[in-house]
Amino acid sequence: MDQNELKQMVGNEAVKYIKNGMIVGLGSGSTIRYMVDALGKRVHDENMDIVCVSTSKFTENQARNLGITVKAIDEVDQIDLTIDGADEISDDFNGIKGGGAAHLWEKIVAINSTTNMWIVDDSKMVHQLGKFPLPVEVIPFGSKHLFDKLQAKGYQPEFRMTDGNYVLTDSENYIIDLHLDKIDDAHALADELISMVGVVEHGLFLDLVDYVIVGTPNGIEKSTRNGFDFEQLG
Amino acid sequence: MDQNELKQMVGNEAVKYIKNGMIVGLGSGSTIRYMVDALGKRVHDENMDIVCVSTSKFTENQARNLGITVKAIDEVDQIDLTIDGADEISDDFNGIKGGGAAHLWEKIVAINSTTNMWIVDDSKMVHQLGKFPLPVEVIPFGSKHLFDKLQAKGYQPEFRMTDGNYVLTDSENYIIDLHLDKIDDAHALADELISMVGVVEHGLFLDLVDYVIVGTPNGIEKSTRNGFDFEQLG
Repeated sequence: MDQNELKQMVGNEAVKYIKNGMIVGLGSGSTIRYMVDALGKRVHDENMDIVCVSTSKFTENQARNLGITVKAIDEVDQIDLTIDGADEISDDFNGIKGGGAAHLWEKIVAINSTTNMWIVDDSKMVHQLGKFPLPVEVIPFGSKHLFDKLQAKGYQPEFRMTDGNYVLTDSENYIIDLHLDKIDDAHALADELISMVGVVEHGLFLDLVDYVIVGTPNGIEKSTRNGFDFEQLG
Repeated sequence: MDQNELKQMVGNEAVKYIKNGMIVGLGSGSTIRYMVDALGKRVHDENMDIVCVSTSKFTENQARNLGITVKAIDEVDQIDLTIDGADEISDDFNGIKGGGAAHLWEKIVAINSTTNMWIVDDSKMVHQLGKFPLPVEVIPFGSKHLFDKLQAKGYQPEFRMTDGNYVLTDSENYIIDLHLDKIDDAHALADELISMVGVVEHGLFLDLVDYVIVGTPNGIEKSTRNGFDFEQLG
């Protein structure tokens, strides 16, 4: 199976855990596109009554086009289950997100969700975070000075560009990717980055996710932490 | 003397410390309007060669209209001296800013300045911070959930509104004012707030400012910390 088939496989699996009446957080990215397609099919075929909250304008448009009810995050009291992708997941269920520049809204949805699930193909599973460049969303005003400070720390920063222009997030900020190669203490790095003036949000997702579904050539692998059980979901 | 006369007095005094060749950070707010007026007069009368960086669109427009050269913060390598106002200053030279919704850009300019000076009328001097509501700039997406979390902490949050609409900062975010009455540990509160997802920047300015000029009915009072001396400036 190629990578897209693995993504489709976990997307199809994840939507099985969505139940009638749920408020569901929809992540962003290529794996989530497959998941939202599968959810749209269930909503249509089973006439499901669910409300979704989206983590990006892209996912929101996709979901609405499939006939899924989407509300703004501030229109719901809480989110029952959020299903998102990740760019890297380490053995301790921490991860790096933001390859699609959506990690700020993704993190806001995640912290307001009772349960968070990540779905990935097996190329995303690592023993140590950091090979994937760590995205940092920053305020454009003064961002070159912030870049210099990150460079002085040895974090190998790089502004994310497209066709010679700064990539803009849905909140109209810039992204600086840090080429760290490996992250020895993710919590310390998270504290350091978030305290830097001009940093809006970094892509480290720590202690947020309890359910992971991984697509491998041998099939689906599911794992949980904190004693959670997939059977309890929903 | 009324409060506006005190503000004008400290504005006039502060510009004496601006020297030819300097890169000067211009704050925001009513006291800074007087200071920028006085600076415009000096630039005109003395044909001064200075470059300014602004902390708000409002101040930038005012300075340009007075013939002062204004560059974007990312066009200069560093800022020599930034002169700004404050909403409260405590005995230990820490302060609250953001009453004018400009504290994010003000803080970005401040941390990139070699020297920071605050100029205020004496009503801003306090023994303990917190009577003035603490402004927090937040991402609009999910801000009601963030508001609820601040309320649960007992911080008496209030969205800043004007004519029934959310006040938008120059970075197009919202402001939540925290009615704390008094702040016992400003550093701990700063760490707590900046770590909350969706918080862009709070209005606590800690360990940033070494020079303060206060306008009182008895005249100008100047104070410094860390052994700095007004005579060394410039």
